[in-house]
This record gives sequence, C-alpha cells and structure tokens, in this order.
Amino acid sequence: MTSSLRVDKQTCDLSSEIGITMLDLIRELFPIGRSITGPGLRATIQCLSKIVPLQITEVPSGTQVFDWTVPDEWSIDEAFIENERGQRIVDLRDSSLHVVAYSVPIDAEMTLSELKPHLHSLPAHPDWIPFRNSYYARNWGFCVTDRLLQSLPEGRYRVVIRSSLAPGSLTLAEYVHRGASDEEVVIFAHDCHPSLANDNLSGLAVAINLAAYLRAQETRYTYRFVFAPATIGSITWLATNESTLHRIKHGLVLSLLGNRGPLRYKITRSGDLTIDRAAWHVLRTEFASSKRLEFSPWGYDERQFASPGINLPVGALMRSQSGEYPEYHTSADNLTLLSPEELGQSWLACLKIFEVLEGNVRYRNLQPKGEPQLGRRGLYQQIGGYFAEVPHRKLALLWILNQSDGACSLLDIAERSQLPFSVIVNAAAELEQAGLLAPVC
Amino acid sequence: MTSSLRVDKQTCDLSSEIGITMLDLIRELFPIGRSITGPGLRATIQCLSKIVPLQITEVPSGTQVFDWTVPDEWSIDEAFIENERGQRIVDLRDSSLHVVAYSVPIDAEMTLSELKPHLHSLPAHPDWIPFRNSYYARNWGFCVTDRLLQSLPEGRYRVVIRSSLAPGSLTLAEYVHRGASDEEVVIFAHDCHPSLANDNLSGLAVAINLAAYLRAQETRYTYRFVFAPATIGSITWLATNESTLHRIKHGLVLSLLGNRGPLRYKITRSGDLTIDRAAWHVLRTEFASSKRLEFSPWGYDERQFASPGINLPVGALMRSQSGEYPEYHTSADNLTLLSPEELGQSWLACLKIFEVLEGNVRYRNLQPKGEPQLGRRGLYQQIGGYFAEVPHRKLALLWILNQSDGACSLLDIAERSQLPFSVIVNAAAELEQAGLLAPVC
Amino acid sequence: MTSSLRVDKQTCDLSSEIGITMLDLIRELFPIGRSITGPGLRATIQCLSKIVPLQITEVPSGTQVFDWTVPDEWSIDEAFIENERGQRIVDLRDSSLHVVAYSVPIDAEMTLSELKPHLHSLPAHPDWIPFRNSYYARNWGFCVTDRLLQSLPEGRYRVVIRSSLAPGSLTLAEYVHRGASDEEVVIFAHDCHPSLANDNLSGLAVAINLAAYLRAQETRYTYRFVFAPATIGSITWLATNESTLHRIKHGLVLSLLGNRGPLRYKITRSGDLTIDRAAWHVLRTEFASSKRLEFSPWGYDERQFASPGINLPVGALMRSQSGEYPEYHTSADNLTLLSPEELGQSWLACLKIFEVLEGNVRYRNLQPKGEPQLGRRGLYQQIGGYFAEVPHRKLALLWILNQSDGACSLLDIAERSQLPFSVIVNAAAELEQAGLLAPVC
Repeated sequence: MTSSLRVDKQTCDLSSEIGITMLDLIRELFPIGRSITGPGLRATIQCLSKIVPLQITEVPSGTQVFDWTVPDEWSIDEAFIENERGQRIVDLRDSSLHVVAYSVPIDAEMTLSELKPHLHSLPAHPDWIPFRNSYYARNWGFCVTDRLLQSLPEGRYRVVIRSSLAPGSLTLAEYVHRGASDEEVVIFAHDCHPSLANDNLSGLAVAINLAAYLRAQETRYTYRFVFAPATIGSITWLATNESTLHRIKHGLVLSLLGNRGPLRYKITRSGDLTIDRAAWHVLRTEFASSKRLEFSPWGYDERQFASPGINLPVGALMRSQSGEYPEYHTSADNLTLLSPEELGQSWLACLKIFEVLEGNVRYRNLQPKGEPQLGRRGLYQQIGGYFAEVPHRKLALLWILNQSDGACSLLDIAERSQLPFSVIVNAAAELEQAGLLAPVC
Repeated sequence: MTSSLRVDKQTCDLSSEIGITMLDLIRELFPIGRSITGPGLRATIQCLSKIVPLQITEVPSGTQVFDWTVPDEWSIDEAFIENERGQRIVDLRDSSLHVVAYSVPIDAEMTLSELKPHLHSLPAHPDWIPFRNSYYARNWGFCVTDRLLQSLPEGRYRVVIRSSLAPGSLTLAEYVHRGASDEEVVIFAHDCHPSLANDNLSGLAVAINLAAYLRAQETRYTYRFVFAPATIGSITWLATNESTLHRIKHGLVLSLLGNRGPLRYKITRSGDLTIDRAAWHVLRTEFASSKRLEFSPWGYDERQFASPGINLPVGALMRSQSGEYPEYHTSADNLTLLSPEELGQSWLACLKIFEVLEGNVRYRNLQPKGEPQLGRRGLYQQIGGYFAEVPHRKLALLWILNQSDGACSLLDIAERSQLPFSVIVNAAAELEQAGLLAPVC
Repeated sequence: MTSSLRVDKQTCDLSSEIGITMLDLIRELFPIGRSITGPGLRATIQCLSKIVPLQITEVPSGTQVFDWTVPDEWSIDEAFIENERGQRIVDLRDSSLHVVAYSVPIDAEMTLSELKPHLHSLPAHPDWIPFRNSYYARNWGFCVTDRLLQSLPEGRYRVVIRSSLAPGSLTLAEYVHRGASDEEVVIFAHDCHPSLANDNLSGLAVAINLAAYLRAQETRYTYRFVFAPATIGSITWLATNESTLHRIKHGLVLSLLGNRGPLRYKITRSGDLTIDRAAWHVLRTEFASSKRLEFSPWGYDERQFASPGINLPVGALMRSQSGEYPEYHTSADNLTLLSPEELGQSWLACLKIFEVLEGNVRYRNLQPKGEPQLGRRGLYQQIGGYFAEVPHRKLALLWILNQSDGACSLLDIAERSQLPFSVIVNAAAELEQAGLLAPVC
C-alpha cells in the first residue's frame, strides 16, 4: 500500500540539473511547425519518445468524438508573400507562426487592399508576430509584425501557401507508469502549438521528465502521461478512452511552466478534492508566493476534464494563466522567456504533489491515552526545559500522535499543522517503526 | 415557467425618468400630516391610488392583532402655543412635526416650567424639529427647534391641541400583480410618518412605481405590494392575513431609498435564502459600493417578518439605516435630501432583483461530455488564438455549459462566475435556442 | 437548572483586591524548590490548602500510568560548586534553579573541562539562570548565569549534590465544589515548577482563588480543581481517574496568567465546543485585544486532555504561550513580571466564562408572532421616535425574542448579537419575569 516515493534532498538537488536538460529539449523542439494534426505534431512526439517510449494512437479524420469531429490532417510545405519586385517579404521558413494554422492552399496575385484582410498583426507590439489559427472555418492568412504591415506599399503581391488539408489522422501519445494499483493519476500536456516556448514546450518538457523520473520508482498509483493537441486532442483522447476514465483518481494539466513568476494551482470544478488539497498544500508550504486560482471554465484542457459529463478530478498547474502575460501566443513566447530554475522547480513541485498522493494514508495511534513517552524511545531529547524553538520534526511527531484516531489522513494532519508533507510522512515512519502507529487498512 | 421579465437597456434608461416622477410624487405627499391611523394616512393612500389602484382594508380600533390591539384613530385639526401677547409661537400649520403624534386634546394656560416637560427639541441641531410620538401612552407634547425653546421667556403660555382620539380604524392598502403562479413576492413600505421625505416617502414612491411597471409585464410570481403603518401596521397586516402568508416565497421591505449613498441590503434572519442571494448578487455585481448588512432585530418592518412565529423570507433594501443619518426623524429629512438619480437607481435595483427571482431556473447541458463545438453553431469566433480579453458573454456561455448538470441554478452560476445575472440569463437563452440546454422541470 | 452565578459589578470590583491577594500568595510560594515529586511539591499544596481544603492523593513510584511510570521521588538538601580556594561559586540556597531537576547525588573533584558539560547557561541573557531538568535520564548538572560560566578559570572544582532519588510517591491535589449536577467543569493548573512566578504560580493563584469564590456560590455544574505536576502529573491524574472522566463537560488549563499582555484562549482539539465558544465570547466582548489561538499539540497539559484516547473538552487560558516570552523558564520569570491587575483580570475572565457555562440555557418566545408590545409591560420607553442610540439592554431584549425558537441557546444569541453574555442573561431574566419567555427543558 505504502509508496516508496520520497522526494528527498537528493531529488531536490537534482531539479536544477533537470531544468537544464529540459531547456535543451525545448531548444530542440522549438523550430518544429506543430499543429493539431500533421507531420510537425508527429516529429514532436518522436523527439519526446527519445526520453521515454511513447504509445502512439492515430485517430482518423472524420471520427466523431463527442460533439466534435476529428478534422482533416493539415500539412504545409511552403508559404510566402512576394512583392512586385519578387522579394519574399514574408516566408514560413523564418517562423512557423507566419501562416494562420490550417490555411487552405493558395497561389494568387492581389492588391494590398485584397491582401490586408488576411494579414494579422499586433499593433501594441509592433515587432511581434501573433499566433492565429482557423481550424474549423476554411480560410487562409498570414501573421506578420505590425511594423511590416504598416510599411507595405500599395501594389500587387503574390501569395503562395502550399498546404494540404485532407483526410489523415490526429496523433495521440501516452506513457503509462504502472503502480501497485490500477487507480490512475493522469498528467496531460498539450502539444499542438507551433514555435512557442512557454506554451507549451515547457509543459511537455516537465511532463516527459516526470515520466522519466517515475520510471525508476515504485509507486502506489499508476501514472498516465497524455500528450495531445489542446481542445480537439483532449476531447479525442477522452472520447476514445471513455470506458477506462473511471480509473482516474487524480490528475494535473501541465502548461506554461517555464517562465519566471510563482507557481499557480487552479482548482478542479469541485475545488476540495484530494488533488486540490495536495497541490495547494505543497505550494503553500514549500513554494514561496504560490497562488491558488479559483476554477473557471476558461484556460486549457482542464476545461474538458471539468465538463459535467466527464467531471474528473483534474487540476491545473502553471506559472502564468493563458492570456495573462503579454508574450502569450506571439513570437515573443520564445526561449528567452524560460529559465532552467523555474522549469526544474515546476518539475519538483509535481513530484512533491505525487509524494502527497502516494503517502496520504491514515494511521491509528497505538498509545492514544495521553502522550506516549517519546524520550525512552529515543524520539525526544532527554534534558528538558528549553522549548523556545520546537523543531518541525518534533512538532510533526506530536501532531501525528494527536490526530491519528484512524479518521485523519496524513494530508489532513499536514494541512492542520501547516508542516510540509515530507516532514509529516517521515515522522509517521519513525513513529510506526517505534510501534506507536499502525496504518488503517 | 420562464418569465418574460428582462431588465434591458431600455428599462435601465427609463430609470432616470422614473426618478423624476418619483420626486414629484414625494413633493405632493410631503405636506400631508400622516400618522398610524387617521385622515392623513387615508389621503396618502388616495394619492398613491392615482398611480395604481389600491385595495383598501380598514381594521377597526380594538381588534386584537397578535400581542397588540389596533389603537383608537387619531385626527388633529389645530394645534398651537400662544405667548402672553397672543402670538402663535408654535403652529401645526407650519409643520406636521410640531405636535407629538397621538397627543390628547388640551386647551390650557400654564407657566413655562409647566410647559417645558412637554416640549421636545434637538440641542445638537438647534434649527431642526424632531419627530416624536406617544402612540400607546396618553400624553401630549410639542416638537420645536431648540433655538425657539432656548429663547422662550418666563411667563404664561396658552396651549391648544384640537385632536380627537376615538374608535375608528387602521388603514391598510395593497396592490396585487398576478403572475403565472400563486407563489408571492411581497414588497412592504411603511406609510405612517408625517412630513419626512426619505423616511419613508422614498419607499412609497419606489414601491408604487415598481407596481406600475410590473402591471405591463408577465411574471412567474405574483407580486403583492403592501402599504401600512410601521410596526402596528405590519403586525395588523400579518395578523389579518395569517392564513395566506405561506404563499410568500420572497420579500423586501423598502425604506430610506432616496438619499445619496450606496445601496444596502439587510439579510433575512436566515441570511442564506434566495432573496438574500439574489439581492446581494445584483448589488455587488451592478451597483458600486453596495453593502450587505447583517441581520439584526432592529430597523423597520423586517423585524415583524423575522419574528420566530412568522419567519418569512423577507430582506430589506435601503440606502441608510434608520437612526444612522443625522437628519433621521427630524424636519431636516426633507426634499433636499433626495435625488432623482438615487430614487431611480433604487427602483432599478429592485427590478433587477425581481429579474433574478423570475429567471432563476435550472438547466441541463445536452452535450455534457467535453465542451460542445460552439463555433459551428455561430456562438464563437472562427479565427482563434487571441484570448487576452474574453467577453462576458463568451464566459457566460462556458460557465453555463460547465455548471448545468441539472442541480445548479442560474443564480448559482451567476454567483460562482461573478457575472451579472442579466448576462447569464441571456446566454442561457442563446444556448437553449442552439439546442445545447434544456430546462429542468 | 438555572444557576445563581452572576458576575455583577461587585464581583468585577472585587477582582483588583483579589489580584493583590494573589500576588501575596505567589510571593510566599516563590522560594519553595518544587519538582514533579518531593517535599517542595507537598509544601506548595500545604500552602494552597490554607485557602481551600485540598484532597491529597499520593501515587506510589512505579505505578504504571498509561504509557508512563510514576518516577522515583526526588529530594535535595544541598548542592554547590566550590573553587580551589573553597569558595562556593554556585549554591542551591541562592536559587532553586541552580540544580538540574532530578540530578543524581555526586561529591567529586574535577577539572573545568570535566565540569563544563554539566553546566547550563543562556549566552543570550548572560545574567539569567535557566531552568533545566532530567526527569527520565539519570544525570546531574548545574544551571548558572552565562556571566559566571565565562569567568570560570581553569583549575579543579568540587561538585556536591546531596540529593536522593528513591521510591516514594507523586502528589496530586484536588478541590471539588459540588453543583446541582454531577456534570463537571475541570480546572487544571500545574504545580511542579521551581522558583518561577508566571509559570505557574500565577495559574495556581488564579485557580485556588476561583475555588475560594465558588465555595460561597450555588452552581449548576460541579467544579473540580486539579493541582498536579505538568505532563507526568496530568497523565497520572487522568490514568487514576479514568472511570469518572466522562463527567467532564467543559474544562480549562490555567497557566501563565500574571504577566502583562492580553488574554489568550487556546481552543480545544475540536475547536467548536461550548467551552471554546464561551471562552472566546467572553474574551472578545469584554477583554480588549484578546486573542484566540489555534489548537496545537504543543503547550501545557491541554495536550494530555486532547490526546485521541482521552479527548476531553478542555481549552487553555493564558496571557503568554510557553516559550514565547524571553523570561520563560529562566530566573527572570520572577515576581517583577507579575501585576495584580492582570492576575485579577485573569480570575475575572474565568468567572465570566463560568457564568456563560452556567447560564447557557434555551428559551422559547411565548409571543412569537411579531414583536410583543414591550411598552405596556414597562420594558420600553413610551415616547418613541428617537432611535439613534439603542441601548444594549433593549437590543438584547429584541435579539432574545427574535432568536428564542427553542433551538437557540443564550450563548448562540450572545455570539450572533455580539452583546456581552451578562447583558443577554439579564435581559432573558426580565423577559421571563414578564411572561414572554419560558425555558426549554
């Protein structure tokens, strides 16, 4: 029953090193032109598979997934705009953001005023390229800096998009770490965004490195890591796995985890589930300035997990909320936004949340009348009288003995005492070894 | 089931106009010498009847009403104090506040020291006349400015009060707007105070204009407007209508609604009823600086509705609490204290509260697994990617879909999302029309 | 059922006088060298017995008490350190703190470096002597000022401790004030600390004077005052009285009650029991700057009452928390730390808490429909109209009538109205006398 997963000092120290590894991975993934289907998505999964082997599922275009239909597969070879002098003023090769995702093919000449409705820019940030898509309405367009847009002279332009939009499939990828129980913890990260670093290469990097770490561990729960496009991907995964969703007991959506700023946990639709309590306990006791965000049906794929017909216990961990930082969905969401320290800390926070989920058992105090005499069991100093600073470990011993009536879990005790869970779980092990505590089955 | 009551922009715009109408009405009612019984009370009701026809009930003096007895009817023709030179230094014709309400008749000469115990003034506000009454102890008295009182020379004074205190009746008035259901919303305003503007001509004006507005509307609930004297009047109304009080599902006591300052809602004895939630939701989301007041058994007629043997779901809406503004119960509570904007806004707030009561139904999401694809139903923009500012309407669509599991009402959703109820109710209508939502019977 | 215990103005005035008496008692007790067993403990109980007669129980060494064993009895006749010139540089006669409690006998010569591991001092407070003990590990030691320790020259020292550690007994003392019911309120104060004033001669002084005051009163509850050593004493008392612990309905541990600073109430393990509500209601409404402390399994003997196998409704009243004031467990916790005002106020607060426990009954309003007419019963002024300042007594009448549906207790009403309990209990008596209220059996 009890897990061997303990996030000790060694693992904490490891997190800085892992942060650097993650940044390297992100650097490799960044140039790939991903979308919700197609070769860029597959190349991304290929790259992640080098870290842990992923199971890949291709869901054919046209498959009905709840209220949606898996769209045609989109691929793009070339896209540019040429001016009258034959100069390529916009070229997909410069940035995967330059073409509106799911643009239909075109090869045509037109005037500036015909072209302009198809050009997207950000006047407030004249040097940034926005990210735009048109997944479900057939259209085409280019995303450019506002500085370029404003400088375009009247005249004729040649517009070329060599894309294909045809039946194919949507690619899902999973890694399953088997635990002692069939009950699952699901970790979801979306993998459909083009050259954007924080959103969501950071989430992919954290998730795949959690998978890699767990590989060497024995756990109580089975951990399922799902990599899928946002919205249509999570809906497709939920629809094609509906019969086994009941195994999911806890879950986290991971996104936007590499930028500077405190960790934020967004609660589930219910808000008071074990994952909510575990995540917030870890953040408030161990990660300074963390924030607990209220639930809202806006954000990333936690929305799908939270829909009333699915209603799974899945929260979301992030450092920024989508749409809340200016670089969001622009070319400025690049590698300069990320820090290895933050990536490593995000990874560590997840592990510490897993540690709580794994170690959250209930005990019974076997000497419940008065405090047991800890001194003669070597759990207490022998010269008494100076109590000014009571160490965490000693307080943890007393809290566990006081609360362990068989109904309180270690997470209950950690919350009430406001001591880090890792201190509580280690103190419980000491008391169990001393014969003062027995687990409640 | 569903109400047609929608407080749209047109109604909001109307509120300023109605504010001016209300101030005119108050100007007309102000000089009338009202009391808890008698001709002034009847004249007031007559005047209100010109706006909507009121049902009048006369309850005879001596009728036992719970722990009380309907008192004798009081009327007054003339009252003055003359000095030795025959000058009228105090005269009822100058202010209906000059005589202590329910003063017994007197025609006598006396010294200043005999007179003084019968004179009431406000030393802290030397130019204001206080309002005093002696409804249940036979007595007489005059209310005067402290400046006059301090200036009175020794000498003899003639005191004349030509009043009558004899069996008659206490006058109750009602307007009932029939809705689809027999279930009632009760609106109560006290109508017994003499020339005081905010307390409670403002309440009368708001109530009668709500009645006039509802006349042209189809509603789910029946709305019962009750005009009665404070305390003895509400007790008399409750006692004489005891057998039908069970129809009351929600209610508001209206008073002190014309002065400047934020709206305040005083919760019911229970504090968590639908009326409490509806009123506070409207105030906090739509009326800046509003306050939610705790329940207390002090104030106006909400006290009677809240007595343990009655215990009806009736809150109180006001801008000031009784006794909390210096002009309260003095001649300074006059027309200069009132503003048409505030009157109109008070009226609008009541309507918006009614809108919540009317529209607070439960729906079931008919596509509950994942989010439904709003784009193909024309409920969502087609070019995605820029989410920085999500409009209220779109958030409302997502909140309703997420929460509509058949147990959550629209008010629950409005509270959780902190979106104005009107946005929620309109978004629910759009979703119902798109076939995504069905009402729960 | 109803108690006659009323804390009126006379009792409040008495508290300053009692404060002075308490300080005199503490002055008498201060020099006695107390420990968890032995002659000093017995002398202390002897001294308290002069105020109210105490029942004394001697529990033999070796008795098994839950997880503990009653230790051998310790006594000490003489203890000193002499330098090479035969000068006594440390002498027990100067302070009972100089010897580590439960030091084994020794008469030996040694070098400074052999001696030093047995010397305890406080470098941060070079002129204070710490209090140390070694109850359960056989050892010996001296507590000295750091100034002395630092000044000791190299050389040989003679160390003499003439103590005895042999089978004997641990002394418990009780005073029981019989009330109408067998249900008990337990008051616990620890009595084992040597020459420390606030900890816990202040607790002993308050407790014994509460016992003396209650002697002349008729009460509903039986009050049991227990004087015992900390930890081993409370465990011994609980173990030897286990069969009658079920009678305890409320309780307080009293300690650290004489120093300056606001009163603090530490809640029980449950936190929402009647004793928690009564104590905090009294403190917040009547003792400025009071604090409500969360439960923690650290502190004094409330820890034993709160152990899961005992789990009694016992809170703790104090002015400082153990370990939180710098003088704690040092020679600076002496008489200069105490003030008679604070001692008197602590005593008064306990009485007021008892008043709530005694008077916390439920009533039913006999005229529950609307407000009863208080005026004709002489409970209300007869000239109405000026409500600016509603006196506490009038509000109390209205709150009691409004809330007394048979389910609300007077403490419920006091909490909701935020009026002092004494105002509520007196207003309830007026209403009962007027025939408007009947107690619920």
